[in-house]
Amino acid sequence: MIKDDEKTAARQTQKHLFPRSEFDLIRSVRQRAASQSSHASNPQQSLLIQGIGDDAAVIKQHTGRETVVTTDLLVEDIDFRRDSSPPALLGHKALAVSLSDIAAMGARPRFSLLSIGVSLHVWEEESNFVDEFYEGFFNLADRYDVRLIGGDISRTPEKIVIDSIAMGESAAGRSVSRSGAKAGDLIFVTGSLGGAAAGLRLLERGARLGQEHPDEPEWKLVEELILRQLRPEPRVGWGLVLGEEQLASAMIDISDGLSSDLHHLCEESGAGALIETVRLPIDEPVKDLCGRRALDPLLLALHGGEDFELLFTVPPENVANLPTRVDGVSVTRIGEIKEASHGVRIAEGSRVWDLTAQGWQHFTK
Amino acid sequence: MIKDDEKTAARQTQKHLFPRSEFDLIRSVRQRAASQSSHASNPQQSLLIQGIGDDAAVIKQHTGRETVVTTDLLVEDIDFRRDSSPPALLGHKALAVSLSDIAAMGARPRFSLLSIGVSLHVWEEESNFVDEFYEGFFNLADRYDVRLIGGDISRTPEKIVIDSIAMGESAAGRSVSRSGAKAGDLIFVTGSLGGAAAGLRLLERGARLGQEHPDEPEWKLVEELILRQLRPEPRVGWGLVLGEEQLASAMIDISDGLSSDLHHLCEESGAGALIETVRLPIDEPVKDLCGRRALDPLLLALHGGEDFELLFTVPPENVANLPTRVDGVSVTRIGEIKEASHGVRIAEGSRVWDLTAQGWQHFTK
Repeated sequence: MIKDDEKTAARQTQKHLFPRSEFDLIRSVRQRAASQSSHASNPQQSLLIQGIGDDAAVIKQHTGRETVVTTDLLVEDIDFRRDSSPPALLGHKALAVSLSDIAAMGARPRFSLLSIGVSLHVWEEESNFVDEFYEGFFNLADRYDVRLIGGDISRTPEKIVIDSIAMGESAAGRSVSRSGAKAGDLIFVTGSLGGAAAGLRLLERGARLGQEHPDEPEWKLVEELILRQLRPEPRVGWGLVLGEEQLASAMIDISDGLSSDLHHLCEESGAGALIETVRLPIDEPVKDLCGRRALDPLLLALHGGEDFELLFTVPPENVANLPTRVDGVSVTRIGEIKEASHGVRIAEGSRVWDLTAQGWQHFTK
Repeated sequence: MIKDDEKTAARQTQKHLFPRSEFDLIRSVRQRAASQSSHASNPQQSLLIQGIGDDAAVIKQHTGRETVVTTDLLVEDIDFRRDSSPPALLGHKALAVSLSDIAAMGARPRFSLLSIGVSLHVWEEESNFVDEFYEGFFNLADRYDVRLIGGDISRTPEKIVIDSIAMGESAAGRSVSRSGAKAGDLIFVTGSLGGAAAGLRLLERGARLGQEHPDEPEWKLVEELILRQLRPEPRVGWGLVLGEEQLASAMIDISDGLSSDLHHLCEESGAGALIETVRLPIDEPVKDLCGRRALDPLLLALHGGEDFELLFTVPPENVANLPTRVDGVSVTRIGEIKEASHGVRIAEGSRVWDLTAQGWQHFTK
């Protein structure tokens, strides 16, 4: 463990030993990205013509394939806080949220571009921030064979901003939109719900990773929930199975919250839905911890957001073909698609009510 | 002409009449983007499978084609200032800088994704900012048949941030990298140089668009230079000709400044260069105005940046096939590629010196 004053000394040394321009950073990121293609069997090698180092990246096309592309903007103090997220986890999350979008299309992630803006202060005094950020980014990218092929670097007056772009690929006609759900399709969700939102609440109350609480047996659960918020796992494997095997009729990832994202899916599909509270796969640590902390597990699971699980619909005839687990992650049936006139509703036993979209919005009316 | 107090009143009315969530904005941007495909002959229609409205956009691929993709991050008070750039010009520029990158690859721009972050204050009190921004963006996009297919919206604590992603297409092997220049190739530049940097200096000294200076005959020149800074024209037509007809051996767009971008091109090509000051196509208004304003036209043209002209190299046997003008824009031969050992140099008559890269950097050593 490095103490704070040692850290400061190390940073200052680093500052003087390794002054660098943005071109130095681009050079080192480019080298790191080039090392990503070291696997001879890597299919990207045959697709990528030009990576980092030119005005734009260049990728081969193939008839019968589709390109899937998405972008996510992350802003300091709105989408993340420096004091609660280590830089490496921020790098992880910046990529994870975009890979989650690619997974939600049933596509295979291939490439990434990353724009990052930091203040002069961060650049000069906390140069390890940028390095650790990229390290977290590349660790996740390497796990899914995603190659960094471009990006941009800017200075900002104060706050850090990140824009993460991911590109994927699927066979023609195999990408899964939000709009294909039909009455009678069953609604599934991967993994568990509410953990990321619970983690955010704990962070807001002052909990931090790496705090030591030897007297508190719950601490492992707290850290688990914080990591659900700071280090979401994109469900890349599930997305691929559902897309390639054409099992899902519609899909979306849960970023805003189950209630909002189910509304998005139903709106695009021109359909309604009925989900059952008893079926919701609420994160176990959420159930264990939340009662004692005045948090409602059901509300966190319904409206919390940022779980980055996949919410998808399956025609009844495909349900038997659904795998039990992919990459160790199970799925749970939580309800059924209905006609649009039914609305989006939720049942608890015999009681049924409208499920209003109460997930995350940056700007509300 | 609406007076300021009328403007304020109109804004306040608008605020109360049209409160909106980010989903309202996404809906209206989506409608505007859908209207872009109204031309039946539009080739994008056959390429685009899914635009705005899903987790990601989906585009068809075709064997023998290449996808070209780039991203540019623009941050308020670093890359632009609210008090000097009307929102519509900012929307124009956000797209223009990315189209310029696509042009510099010799590719045809096809699609765009746009991430934008604004403060709650801008959202609530200056809602016309976002509308005008998108209007400027779409005006340029329509001119080049570029379809907006995705993006993201976030809140920021204070400053506006924009990330502009552009995707283009070229026939296999026709995209033009920075790395193909060989000794003996001739160096060309489109349009003229130094205007954008001169415009920036004038803005920094307080000049603004729409100021009236009836006593000052130079005022039209001042506005022209300010527009070179705020409303750059991407050289899309030239990029296409040079790529499709395989005339250029290497190409880059001048964003950082001629000196820096020539260095980038030479570094990637493993080559040197000699350019001649007397050949540089310095912007006419720059020459007319700058002497009296203690600005050096040559320094602005060499190091100024943001002209977004194309800098490219042409093997001698291709020079005769170069068009004189494309879209009304001419090109000028400014020098010749040399062996790497020659370095990157500049000649004024018989005097020759090293051309150091002094263009824009966000972070310097």
